[in-house]
Amino acid sequence: MAHSHGFAALTKTSKLAPFNFDRRDPGPDDIAIQIRYCGVCHSDIHQARDEWGGSIFPMVPGHEIVGKVTKVGKNVKKFKEGDLAGVGCMVDSCGQCENCKDGEEMFCLKGCVFTYNSLDKEGKPAFGGYSDHIVCKEAFCLKISPKLDLAATAPLLCAGITTYSPLKHWKVGKGSRVGVIGLGGLGHMALKFAHAFGAHVTQFTTSPGKEADAKKLGADEVVVTKDPKALAGLANSLDFVIDTVSAPHDINAFLGTLRRNGTLALVGVPEKPLPVSAFSLIMGRKSFSGSAIGGIRETQEMLDFCAERGIVSDIELINIQQINEAFERVTKSDVKYRFVIDMASLK
Amino acid sequence: MAHSHGFAALTKTSKLAPFNFDRRDPGPDDIAIQIRYCGVCHSDIHQARDEWGGSIFPMVPGHEIVGKVTKVGKNVKKFKEGDLAGVGCMVDSCGQCENCKDGEEMFCLKGCVFTYNSLDKEGKPAFGGYSDHIVCKEAFCLKISPKLDLAATAPLLCAGITTYSPLKHWKVGKGSRVGVIGLGGLGHMALKFAHAFGAHVTQFTTSPGKEADAKKLGADEVVVTKDPKALAGLANSLDFVIDTVSAPHDINAFLGTLRRNGTLALVGVPEKPLPVSAFSLIMGRKSFSGSAIGGIRETQEMLDFCAERGIVSDIELINIQQINEAFERVTKSDVKYRFVIDMASLK
Repeated sequence: MAHSHGFAALTKTSKLAPFNFDRRDPGPDDIAIQIRYCGVCHSDIHQARDEWGGSIFPMVPGHEIVGKVTKVGKNVKKFKEGDLAGVGCMVDSCGQCENCKDGEEMFCLKGCVFTYNSLDKEGKPAFGGYSDHIVCKEAFCLKISPKLDLAATAPLLCAGITTYSPLKHWKVGKGSRVGVIGLGGLGHMALKFAHAFGAHVTQFTTSPGKEADAKKLGADEVVVTKDPKALAGLANSLDFVIDTVSAPHDINAFLGTLRRNGTLALVGVPEKPLPVSAFSLIMGRKSFSGSAIGGIRETQEMLDFCAERGIVSDIELINIQQINEAFERVTKSDVKYRFVIDMASLK
Repeated sequence: MAHSHGFAALTKTSKLAPFNFDRRDPGPDDIAIQIRYCGVCHSDIHQARDEWGGSIFPMVPGHEIVGKVTKVGKNVKKFKEGDLAGVGCMVDSCGQCENCKDGEEMFCLKGCVFTYNSLDKEGKPAFGGYSDHIVCKEAFCLKISPKLDLAATAPLLCAGITTYSPLKHWKVGKGSRVGVIGLGGLGHMALKFAHAFGAHVTQFTTSPGKEADAKKLGADEVVVTKDPKALAGLANSLDFVIDTVSAPHDINAFLGTLRRNGTLALVGVPEKPLPVSAFSLIMGRKSFSGSAIGGIRETQEMLDFCAERGIVSDIELINIQQINEAFERVTKSDVKYRFVIDMASLK
């Protein structure tokens, strides 16, 4: 056992505060990572505040983890001491079910072990990346290229794969006409990827102030959705829409922008069910779909693509002591576009 | 102009009653059909009662039309006098948009002309099949095999294609595990087709009394959905679900029965929006989709398939004078499984 130090929420109403706990020593298939940076995902807040129910406390959030390998178990092949490594939203899964066998561990039929707010196979709570180090099965660790800015790479582990995976699954590429709803942590990555894949991208935002930024990030068109008529003008024009918004919003208006056989894929997680009208789907054979992160194989593919194309997240670097303020600002969408914690600030 | 006689609703609250009107004489691209049978679709009732809004009165409903060709225009190639012919839900479309060009006229971007409750290209109201004859562009008429029982063939023109098309689009075949929600006019056809395509079919019904019938029609399993636990036992088991129900129902419970990447396709048209929870879609990358009838080419393919495999609808034959009673019974789901009007009763 090794002592670990981090920041935790002790209850759903308490602020995050310093917290000491133990991590297992690396087993033969594990690596230990000294955490250098950890991204702040909106789902960290949802879970720390128990907004999805069933939260496990004390909770050390964080699943956008990058750092340096400090120890490797004897069976480890992908990593050696001193390498860069990342951990995303999952740290284990059954490995036996049809979804795991197909490399989609996030849909493990027995339930994968998430990086935090989850029980591992021995029934012990998993602690996340708002901490000094992590021990993780090699199979769930990602190789990180030294070519990219390391802090700005952290958000790729969740915001990156969450948007890359559906764009790939629904075959977005050259000539595709894609809409991105929301320009936050997820949205700005969706925009960067869709643009990098060669699509014509329409960015939807409720904030007129974000137009210039969206263009800089790769949007071909920016539509401010406060005006419902703005959407009507786009009827039957898009092949695919990725919806990164977690607040309540009118899905039917966006379904109207899809061409025949088009898909709107939700990657945000609104707390309340979204009302969908039958006519929005049956006229044009449209689909309202969802997608969650991506498998380990695809996450590595995404990281390699980013290294090749120089894609990272736009971030604001903070010290761990600013985490409660950062949570407040994320809930107000007041960040461009992801907070990343510099773990050197954790003493 | 030719005098035509049928039954019409004069207002959204009036009962259907005898009605005289004119039909155009067949032009060079038209055929005239003496209507022998017309199916009674639930959407006839929705529209006659203006439940979807925008209904045009007087309204002669009916879009499951079969009969005998009595006249052909000089450019007509597919039909000759005395042939059997059918007309479904559409009688015209622009022919120029991307959807028409792809043979999906029901999604015509200018709006197709429906068989009734619709204005034709000259702005005149179209009158449907609860009548003695119809004049229709050859391109929107279907060839009907004399091998099949003619009365029982009528419902194929709407209930048949509405269920055949999504099963084909989502590639249901041997080895597919398919669910059918609802065992009415649409549901019993979905069940017959899914079974004919070689799928393992689970029929969902709220009526315990329909179990034996469902098995006879081809269901491998029947699940009575009054008990929510019945659905929980089917978690992650089905590849595709076709939902034929127009009443309010819990879509999320049925999304739970889908395997990864599975689709639930709505073909019923509930009046009110259906609440869909984000987790129902994102966990397993599932899709809530919709489908509406099918194009003319696919409708012909479906009719040819039915002729080859001896598939027709299960019907109750009525006289036109019983139509108001039939409407009442359809709204109570008290029909096995489609009323068809014997137009010989229309004097």
